[in-house]
Amino acid sequence: MNRFWSSLVQRTDPYVPGEQLNQPDLLKLNTNENPYPPSPKVAEAIKEEAENLRLYPSPTVDVLRDAIAGHFNLKRDQVFIGNGSDEVLAFSFMAFFEPGKAIRFPAITYSFYPVYAKIFDIPYELTPMQDDFSIQIEELFNTDGGVIFPNPNAPTGIYLPLDGIKQVLEQNPDQVVIVDEAYIDFAGESAASLVDAYENLLVIQTTSKSRSLAGLRVGYALGQKHLIEALIRIKDSFNSYTIDRLAIQGALASFQDQAYFEETTKKIIATREQTVEKLQSLGFAVIPSQANFVFARHAEKPAEELYLKLKENNVLVRHFNKAPIDNYLRITIGTDQEMNRFIETLSSLV
Amino acid sequence: MNRFWSSLVQRTDPYVPGEQLNQPDLLKLNTNENPYPPSPKVAEAIKEEAENLRLYPSPTVDVLRDAIAGHFNLKRDQVFIGNGSDEVLAFSFMAFFEPGKAIRFPAITYSFYPVYAKIFDIPYELTPMQDDFSIQIEELFNTDGGVIFPNPNAPTGIYLPLDGIKQVLEQNPDQVVIVDEAYIDFAGESAASLVDAYENLLVIQTTSKSRSLAGLRVGYALGQKHLIEALIRIKDSFNSYTIDRLAIQGALASFQDQAYFEETTKKIIATREQTVEKLQSLGFAVIPSQANFVFARHAEKPAEELYLKLKENNVLVRHFNKAPIDNYLRITIGTDQEMNRFIETLSSLV
Repeated sequence: MNRFWSSLVQRTDPYVPGEQLNQPDLLKLNTNENPYPPSPKVAEAIKEEAENLRLYPSPTVDVLRDAIAGHFNLKRDQVFIGNGSDEVLAFSFMAFFEPGKAIRFPAITYSFYPVYAKIFDIPYELTPMQDDFSIQIEELFNTDGGVIFPNPNAPTGIYLPLDGIKQVLEQNPDQVVIVDEAYIDFAGESAASLVDAYENLLVIQTTSKSRSLAGLRVGYALGQKHLIEALIRIKDSFNSYTIDRLAIQGALASFQDQAYFEETTKKIIATREQTVEKLQSLGFAVIPSQANFVFARHAEKPAEELYLKLKENNVLVRHFNKAPIDNYLRITIGTDQEMNRFIETLSSLV
Repeated sequence: MNRFWSSLVQRTDPYVPGEQLNQPDLLKLNTNENPYPPSPKVAEAIKEEAENLRLYPSPTVDVLRDAIAGHFNLKRDQVFIGNGSDEVLAFSFMAFFEPGKAIRFPAITYSFYPVYAKIFDIPYELTPMQDDFSIQIEELFNTDGGVIFPNPNAPTGIYLPLDGIKQVLEQNPDQVVIVDEAYIDFAGESAASLVDAYENLLVIQTTSKSRSLAGLRVGYALGQKHLIEALIRIKDSFNSYTIDRLAIQGALASFQDQAYFEETTKKIIATREQTVEKLQSLGFAVIPSQANFVFARHAEKPAEELYLKLKENNVLVRHFNKAPIDNYLRITIGTDQEMNRFIETLSSLV
């Protein structure tokens, strides 16, 4: 603490992202990056736009909003673009949640939510999970301040079908319900199809995972116009130009190459299913994941020990040192070759 | 207003950036962009990095912090990087200013400051200007909550020498004083040289103006370690990765080509001085600017009329419809050829 720090800084409890190590030959399965590069059209578009950097980008990012709206069969004014879905989440906490009114989210979830709640002074309640770590939707009914949860959930990978989401929306008619779909392209149907029907629904997605653009920082929100307008008001009170020219053109090129996106996504899903089987044969209990990662616990070996031994062997996975998930490893799905190397290393440890 | 909007959204009064029109042959002198492209090394670095987009960027941006620290003879932990200086400003309002304690800034200044103050609920007082629109530094002494001002000031372009800044720092020993140096490279000495001596000084700069990177969104703050740490805590409670891979490498390349930067900056300063003379010969009173723009008022023609007629003639400048500056035009300095075209168009109107 320091006498120059505001009370807001003093109450921060910053999020700790996964390690970003840089050693050669590291097998990096810890931050849910896509093992495949983005569509080759992305680099082409970026190279072209690199000649225009002296000029400000569009503050309204309409060209990309139109492309994303088209992809989801929505309108431009139902799309908000942010600097990664984390920025969209931060703006959403500011726009829709209120100091003094408790929001709710599942006890096991994306660990950035309590960080946002602290900085923006939003009280929150953690709702208990079912025994299999899936979300108890009834616990998210009738909230004071609103609801947020990832779907598929993080770090479990469990997908909640749209029927459950509809119930949460209907049982919170005066609060905003945020469905954080960072991993939805590896799972079932997106709640984007519910936007026109529910005035309290905000869906948040990212290009970081399924579109292989973690390094470009483009996320977006889908919702009815009145919710999008609130996000725009926050952004324009904060930073007029959050998305640079290269990010606009790069993300646009990605949305224009749907075939590539579908092909790489299918490959990752297939590798995930094979990895689950191999983990089970090594004595792991694996939570049924619909994301680009799996969450698994070994019958005998403690997760922390495995995490450290894997790291010694140049394989990085993610371990959350926090009950009740402290005996699990979160393992990003790489290519088939990468997962073979992972399984081989792991076999020697269990 | 809408029942789903938080009280924070309801009190927003968003900043309106300069128009970003796109018509062919438009002479765009309204948002203080650099007429010269960035160093050719920037595009090279970006093209190379475009191959690495599937991986997250560094959350700590150390490679760029080191380059900027080296440029200013500071240490890595005295540098914070943000998504444009607007984001750095927003984080600084959160980190150093306190609801209930009034900050002060000059009555004529960057029009984003009151927008930040509103969204973060910081009370503010506008201090009166001298008759020539320069800052009355005594009015910035002994504040409750801190001080912020641009140097050179916006939109006047007037530079405050470091002696004045030292007095403001010394007369606010327990408050943070933010010197917003977006245009400093076209002016006199930066307050960066005072960082080691003043624990309450935060200097904010941008690559948007003098480094021709408005389209890339990279700004930074310089200050003692305890201030930088506060900004990092805010960032890590908001968005772990605000600077994408391309922005990191592009900005780095710019700092590695000092000769190019000095050459283009000198050209703009020379064009500015010629433009001032020509404006004076057309009957304009021009405020002595040390920025890459001039702020000028015609003896007879109202500014709004000139702004509209210039626009009809495909020349865009900025007009702020707000007393006491509503009879001024802010004109960005372009190339010599561009300013010749501007002066020619203007001559036909006055």
